[in-house]
Amino acid sequence: MAPSLHDDVAHLSFLLGEWHGSGEGRYPTIEPFGYNEQVEFRHVGKPFVSYVQRTKHAETGLPLHAESGYLRPVGVDAVEFVVVQPSGIVEVHAGTVDAGSGSIVLEATDVLTTPTAKEVSAVRRSLSVDGDALSYTVDMGAVGQPLQHHLSATLHRQ
Amino acid sequence: MAPSLHDDVAHLSFLLGEWHGSGEGRYPTIEPFGYNEQVEFRHVGKPFVSYVQRTKHAETGLPLHAESGYLRPVGVDAVEFVVVQPSGIVEVHAGTVDAGSGSIVLEATDVLTTPTAKEVSAVRRSLSVDGDALSYTVDMGAVGQPLQHHLSATLHRQ
Repeated sequence: MAPSLHDDVAHLSFLLGEWHGSGEGRYPTIEPFGYNEQVEFRHVGKPFVSYVQRTKHAETGLPLHAESGYLRPVGVDAVEFVVVQPSGIVEVHAGTVDAGSGSIVLEATDVLTTPTAKEVSAVRRSLSVDGDALSYTVDMGAVGQPLQHHLSATLHRQ
Repeated sequence: MAPSLHDDVAHLSFLLGEWHGSGEGRYPTIEPFGYNEQVEFRHVGKPFVSYVQRTKHAETGLPLHAESGYLRPVGVDAVEFVVVQPSGIVEVHAGTVDAGSGSIVLEATDVLTTPTAKEVSAVRRSLSVDGDALSYTVDMGAVGQPLQHHLSATLHRQ
């Protein structure tokens, strides 16, 4: 039996479900690339929302990126987000939620990397849901480059 | 079709699979508690191993803890581990791997917490696999207490 949604995450319910779609990435230091993506936002009845993401290269179909994390509500209009990547990057974000328009804007307050990971200095993520369509962008400052557009994608709820 | 294991994580193959079991937790600031646990170590053919964990309270069956992260090999005897928890804690670990004895010892080089999370100052994790049995301990320094035993569990490969 599915647990009831915790009251503290009721205003994040627009995120819940499994989402599939595609996106594109670019950065001054790499070739632009397309990807297919699967995202899940889930809850277990506790006051957080879990996030799991995987992408595959649009042309080769090979696994490309993955990340997982948790959204922690702070009242009804703010949120904390912690997320970890196999590339050795962990991000701690503070952000705002506008449940009316289904949008979240997140800014990394801290980014940590393991000794063998690439340097990442700043990350900004924004996400909006309109019905069963979710679109997001990720801006990143990394490997000596200033914060700038890196990823954008549009996904659909399954 | 399952991807081939990447050569760089061959010495971590003793971890792979889904594990179920039980453990117990204690800390000076809380009542001791028992928990049931499910852990998955997976790979997608890339040079990392993903980790997902969930626990439920041994008596009530309610969701208790969760965490997810990634192991990144550094040669054949060292490893980096990044892990994130819905309690707003992210840990970056450096550690050693002894594939012969199936053991990993990890020490957090950095622990970050979100503004609303409890304070955690230090984490040490050790894990060993003997055939299809996995046992681990977690030591933690938190909420003003020094680094000390917090969790121990034994799991079995499904």
